[in-house]
Amino acid sequence: MLNIGIIGAGRIGKVHAESITYHIKDAQVAAIADPLMNEATTSWANNLGINKVYHDYKEILKDDSIDAVLICSSTDTHADISIEAIKANKHVFCEKPISQDLAKIKEVMEALKGSNVKFQVGFNRRFDHNFEAVHNAVAAGKVGDVHIVKITSRDPAAPPIEYVKVSGGMFLDMTIHDFDMVRYLTASDVVEVYANGTCLVNPAIKDAGDVDTAIITMKLANGALAVIDNSRKADYGYDQRAEVFGSKGQVAVTNDASSTAVISTSEGVTGEKPLYFFLERYMASFSKEVSLFVQAIIKNTEVPVNINDGLQPVLIAKAAKKSLDEGRPVLLSEIAF
Amino acid sequence: MLNIGIIGAGRIGKVHAESITYHIKDAQVAAIADPLMNEATTSWANNLGINKVYHDYKEILKDDSIDAVLICSSTDTHADISIEAIKANKHVFCEKPISQDLAKIKEVMEALKGSNVKFQVGFNRRFDHNFEAVHNAVAAGKVGDVHIVKITSRDPAAPPIEYVKVSGGMFLDMTIHDFDMVRYLTASDVVEVYANGTCLVNPAIKDAGDVDTAIITMKLANGALAVIDNSRKADYGYDQRAEVFGSKGQVAVTNDASSTAVISTSEGVTGEKPLYFFLERYMASFSKEVSLFVQAIIKNTEVPVNINDGLQPVLIAKAAKKSLDEGRPVLLSEIAF
Amino acid sequence: MLNIGIIGAGRIGKVHAESITYHIKDAQVAAIADPLMNEATTSWANNLGINKVYHDYKEILKDDSIDAVLICSSTDTHADISIEAIKANKHVFCEKPISQDLAKIKEVMEALKGSNVKFQVGFNRRFDHNFEAVHNAVAAGKVGDVHIVKITSRDPAAPPIEYVKVSGGMFLDMTIHDFDMVRYLTASDVVEVYANGTCLVNPAIKDAGDVDTAIITMKLANGALAVIDNSRKADYGYDQRAEVFGSKGQVAVTNDASSTAVISTSEGVTGEKPLYFFLERYMASFSKEVSLFVQAIIKNTEVPVNINDGLQPVLIAKAAKKSLDEGRPVLLSEIAF
Amino acid sequence: MLNIGIIGAGRIGKVHAESITYHIKDAQVAAIADPLMNEATTSWANNLGINKVYHDYKEILKDDSIDAVLICSSTDTHADISIEAIKANKHVFCEKPISQDLAKIKEVMEALKGSNVKFQVGFNRRFDHNFEAVHNAVAAGKVGDVHIVKITSRDPAAPPIEYVKVSGGMFLDMTIHDFDMVRYLTASDVVEVYANGTCLVNPAIKDAGDVDTAIITMKLANGALAVIDNSRKADYGYDQRAEVFGSKGQVAVTNDASSTAVISTSEGVTGEKPLYFFLERYMASFSKEVSLFVQAIIKNTEVPVNINDGLQPVLIAKAAKKSLDEGRPVLLSEIAF
Repeated sequence: MLNIGIIGAGRIGKVHAESITYHIKDAQVAAIADPLMNEATTSWANNLGINKVYHDYKEILKDDSIDAVLICSSTDTHADISIEAIKANKHVFCEKPISQDLAKIKEVMEALKGSNVKFQVGFNRRFDHNFEAVHNAVAAGKVGDVHIVKITSRDPAAPPIEYVKVSGGMFLDMTIHDFDMVRYLTASDVVEVYANGTCLVNPAIKDAGDVDTAIITMKLANGALAVIDNSRKADYGYDQRAEVFGSKGQVAVTNDASSTAVISTSEGVTGEKPLYFFLERYMASFSKEVSLFVQAIIKNTEVPVNINDGLQPVLIAKAAKKSLDEGRPVLLSEIAF
Repeated sequence: MLNIGIIGAGRIGKVHAESITYHIKDAQVAAIADPLMNEATTSWANNLGINKVYHDYKEILKDDSIDAVLICSSTDTHADISIEAIKANKHVFCEKPISQDLAKIKEVMEALKGSNVKFQVGFNRRFDHNFEAVHNAVAAGKVGDVHIVKITSRDPAAPPIEYVKVSGGMFLDMTIHDFDMVRYLTASDVVEVYANGTCLVNPAIKDAGDVDTAIITMKLANGALAVIDNSRKADYGYDQRAEVFGSKGQVAVTNDASSTAVISTSEGVTGEKPLYFFLERYMASFSKEVSLFVQAIIKNTEVPVNINDGLQPVLIAKAAKKSLDEGRPVLLSEIAF
Repeated sequence: MLNIGIIGAGRIGKVHAESITYHIKDAQVAAIADPLMNEATTSWANNLGINKVYHDYKEILKDDSIDAVLICSSTDTHADISIEAIKANKHVFCEKPISQDLAKIKEVMEALKGSNVKFQVGFNRRFDHNFEAVHNAVAAGKVGDVHIVKITSRDPAAPPIEYVKVSGGMFLDMTIHDFDMVRYLTASDVVEVYANGTCLVNPAIKDAGDVDTAIITMKLANGALAVIDNSRKADYGYDQRAEVFGSKGQVAVTNDASSTAVISTSEGVTGEKPLYFFLERYMASFSKEVSLFVQAIIKNTEVPVNINDGLQPVLIAKAAKKSLDEGRPVLLSEIAF
Repeated sequence: MLNIGIIGAGRIGKVHAESITYHIKDAQVAAIADPLMNEATTSWANNLGINKVYHDYKEILKDDSIDAVLICSSTDTHADISIEAIKANKHVFCEKPISQDLAKIKEVMEALKGSNVKFQVGFNRRFDHNFEAVHNAVAAGKVGDVHIVKITSRDPAAPPIEYVKVSGGMFLDMTIHDFDMVRYLTASDVVEVYANGTCLVNPAIKDAGDVDTAIITMKLANGALAVIDNSRKADYGYDQRAEVFGSKGQVAVTNDASSTAVISTSEGVTGEKPLYFFLERYMASFSKEVSLFVQAIIKNTEVPVNINDGLQPVLIAKAAKKSLDEGRPVLLSEIAF
């Protein structure tokens, strides 16, 4: 039974705590820490059987009974806490992105050198049933050599403008999942990026220096082409689709809905909208990614999303931002690392 | 070039005249007759290049240059005109049903004995792209041995009450197509029928002695079970579906629509309704059935829908009516013929 | 916090124990009993935090700290244990069917008279997301007055022949869910039944006196017609669909699959098969039905599936069997109760 | 009755001749010319009732009884024949593209100045039922302001390499339809283009200096973004889809198939492939575009696809080629015209 400490008791920290408690057989949450820890959260933790509840995550790092930590704190703290945890010899599951700052990611990579610590990055969508099905079909050769990858990723509603101001920009906070998805579905790296972006949803986003609508094209190392389209606001809900087209055919996935019900009336033939929110849509994936992290520790095998998988989407996002700023395609090799 | 005479210039006669002119290479409409022939219809016929336009169909039967006739007159005249045409040595394509009166059908069968005349019945739905696809999948063994056949057949709107009074009842005027479909899809005869019927659409239909909503189950000679559900009025349009389930799987077809467009908004995910009217839905099948009739004449091969195929659905309809009246399953062998 | 005792630690008893532990906030499993209780099951129970583990369910009934019991034992014991539990003043959730014997159900009804015990029957499919969506659309008047109900219910594989011999027949062990579904979707009772059944899947089922393929039609108290088609074996998986057609339109649900992936190649355009097994397909419904049972106790409200809801499908199944045996439609009023 | 002369009796000339004869009420084909006119084609024409059959299209231009011409000759002759026809005061329907040479298009535009001749360009896909449904939904405001347009256009098989060498490149011979579609669906012009292209289908295409796989992104005058993905070879057939996403939602169309049949077996749930060939897929659109041309002449109204609509996609294709060659986004204003 692996003992896990969760650092950060915000939305995603709570999701992980509950899914470990209820769905993961070989691990338990032994401790949780959050600088804003309060009575309600303490009570919630106790009800889950988590008895060690702290304000300071360092309590977790110095607890020898803890085998691994999940870093669910604010993005700007991910890298530093990762390094501390590695030094404390804890296995690390770090929410994405590791950092908006490439130098920080490099520091984490340095810290990992020579350590036996497992380090996994939280790209949960790789463990979604739909995207796994695409990945598996491609990996099994069902579509032949990959020629074209298409990802549609649209949020149901734009985030608060305060969040937009500190998120690092849409490419780093939202598209980063899609950049990872391109790599996951094709097993290939991105070589060049060209980004078209604009602000059509909310002018305040433009004022904050960001875009809310984008089409990003990429050249991949395996010769294939990829395209992502993003919007901060799809009125019909959370739109999460992917297609991979290759020499033998295509595999595509569409959205999940709350039921298969279709109502036919004189008004038309109407089905359910996509599931609206990422927690509904991706809940099972949060449990699966941590389950695989636990298994990688127990069996001493490779984690499914390693630190390079955490680095690459940040590099792509930086290249996309540079492309948008300079109005030209940008090679990943132009991004200093 | 086969010369065809069309008897009856109502809706279906006109459909056939146009489709022969425009779509059938080896035949032409040489003459058309209708007791109600007027100036407008004459002008329409002349524009199609049909120069022989009559009030009396006997003019067609005595014209030696005519090879075949299409009998598109009112149902009660089908059998007698068929017999006259057979005697005049014309090949006959007769709209369904041959007759509501089994004795009349027997007379036509007698007339055919010893003649070389081709006789085809107008069960056009056999030539619809969707139902053909089901038939072909079943015939190719893709679903294995047939276990269950399900047909949904619902009209977009109830016919005028004056029509209901003379149609012979819903089973004879509407379900007859579905009875034929059961035989076509399974290549098996019907042995026993049980009909549940009621009047839920329009009470005037009940007053006219008919039903407007029905579920009819059947036992087939090959051991399979079949079910048809009918309604005189589906608010969303013309609902025409079929499923055949067997030892290896299932084949199913759904409705055609005017486009594949799907609109996703905060209201839902809405596609097009089924095509509303039988002429839209089945237009291509009218051309195809006559084309195959023409080929059967030219090549002297079997017609695809013979007189027994015309008889059986009438027998099933009679059994269904008897079942409804007597509240019990009725064997086809109980229907005197 | 409600204390629940589970009687029967077979497959469904275990499903309930786990779903209560992990998903139901206001209840806990305090005890479990099974005459075949062994070390493995005891260890499984202890891991779930269930400390009271018995061979004899009577230990549960005499434990004053237990508020409610789930009866998950073999079908033939449901009624007697229900009566004992009612007398012991425990709320009862009883798996379906209450009994194959109508007299036994009557005894349970008698026992309930004057008691304050909540009694719920385990028709879990009512709590499936798809069927709930149909029910809700119908209840909201989206399809108008109900005219036709169609249910397709096919198992992925026939049960062992030993089970067939004691199950009470397909109508009582399998179709019973579909009979309940007709009532749930329409909020109407069944008045008359006609059953067509045959043996096409496995001749050993015929030898055991049962059928494996059936089409059952029904007349409902509200004037609508219903039809169920059943097979013990659909090669493509567990086929669970429903349609309700009414004066304003139709609502239909189809199967769930493990992903939305569609692969297009020169071979065709291929999607996933339906989920294969009832535990995959209906898992969430098991948790939801018990959750509502718990809420009904806590809030002292009506249970969502009461004893009459448990009785009616047994009456319909008996009528269907009589119809099959006698080859005629059978009124529910013919079944002595 | 409008008299039409068809210039060019190749595949598309024949399609138009047959569709005018069979489907267009207010026009007839009075003459046809082709330098390669032979006995078979003459006989085909005569059977359609076309009596004037020429080698030299000038015979048509000097025939005063001819009201309009359809220019279906080889692409390099479109512009010059258009100019001659305009001078001869014939209305002109010109197949796309008007020319690969912008100077030639300018000459046609000059010739049109001051003339009363109707001039329509053959972008038939605007008249396809699916794309019309998208256009109409967008025009009706159902998706609000347009934010993102996505077009997938993949041929079932690459053209012969001899064709590739003279086609002007994939952007001019294939993507040109998609460039037009972007304008048609959005009612907006393209301002900037960025093209990613590569050769993954057939290396001989690369040797011929062309690409066979491309993703092209565009900025539109209305602020929206667009993307087209192309392949010369989709193993599953002709893939022709479009999506328009806007402030209120999305409208999307997928492919047509030969039937709605879905076969479910232990192998999967398999539907039909897309219609394989452009003549199957778009046949009705060829008739509709000419019908609207005829109506524009008769009623003296605007043609639905005017010479600017013919020019713009050529400008976009030129910009896309320049983008591909120079590896940067190219403004349409950079293309000298």
